[in-house]
Amino acid sequence: MMEALGKQILVEFYDCDSDKINDVIYIENSLIQATKASNATIISHNFHKFSPYGVSGMVVIAESHVAIHTWPEYKYAAVDIFTCGDTIDPWVIQEQLKDYFESKNVSSMEMKRGLFKVPQGQKLLFKPENKFQSN
Amino acid sequence: MMEALGKQILVEFYDCDSDKINDVIYIENSLIQATKASNATIISHNFHKFSPYGVSGMVVIAESHVAIHTWPEYKYAAVDIFTCGDTIDPWVIQEQLKDYFESKNVSSMEMKRGLFKVPQGQKLLFKPENKFQSN
Repeated sequence: MMEALGKQILVEFYDCDSDKINDVIYIENSLIQATKASNATIISHNFHKFSPYGVSGMVVIAESHVAIHTWPEYKYAAVDIFTCGDTIDPWVIQEQLKDYFESKNVSSMEMKRGLFKVPQGQKLLFKPENKFQSN
Repeated sequence: MMEALGKQILVEFYDCDSDKINDVIYIENSLIQATKASNATIISHNFHKFSPYGVSGMVVIAESHVAIHTWPEYKYAAVDIFTCGDTIDPWVIQEQLKDYFESKNVSSMEMKRGLFKVPQGQKLLFKPENKFQSN
C-alpha cells in the first residue's frame, strides 16, 4: 500500500477583487485567519508588497506551509497549501480565502507528496507537531 | 493562445543523506546557494528545525519562492520552486539541491500557474523585479 507523507493543494483564484489582493496587510490577515481556522499551528509569517502591483508571502505552519503570490492586474492569486498529518483541514483555507479575495472562479488540484510503500494496516509517521526550534 | 503567469516545479528528493537534510544550517545554506546560482533575487529566508527530526523553510525571491520540507527519517525532502518571468532557471536549483542532499532518486513535475488567453504574438506582463517594499 502506498502512503504519502504530505499533501499539497494548488489553488488558482481567478476574478478576485484587485484592490484586496494588492493590499499586503489585508492578504497577511486573510492568510493568518484562514490558516488558524484550519486548526494549523502558525510558526512564522512573512509578506512582501511589490511595486507597482502584487504581494508575495508565506505562513509557515507546524504542519508545513501556506504560500501566496498575487497579480492584481490580472485579478489572480496563486495559493499553495502544503500539509502533513490529519489534524488540519486544508480545504477550510481555500474556502475562507475565496471569500476574502471575492474570487468568482476557483480551481484546485490536490497532489500527494513523498509516497512510500507501507505494510497493509500501517501508517507513516509524521513530523511531531508543536515541537520546534526557530533558527 | 494560453500564457501562464507562473511556473512551479514540484521536486521529490528520495534517498537523501539523512544527516544533511536534518541540519537546518546546511539546508538554509544549500537553498540560498542554489537559489543564487539560478540568478534569482533573494528577498528573505526563514528556516525552522523540528524536534526530533525535520526542517521546513522558504526562500522568498523577487521571482516568487523556493520552499522545502524534509523528513530525514525517510531520507526524503519535498521542494517547490515557484517562479515567474524568464530571467531565472529553476532547474539549476533542482540540480544543485540534488548534489547538496546527495539524493539518489529525484522526480519532478512542472505545473503552469495562472493561465490566461492572450492574442497571438503577445506576452503576459510579469511582476517587475527588484522593486518591492518589505512589510
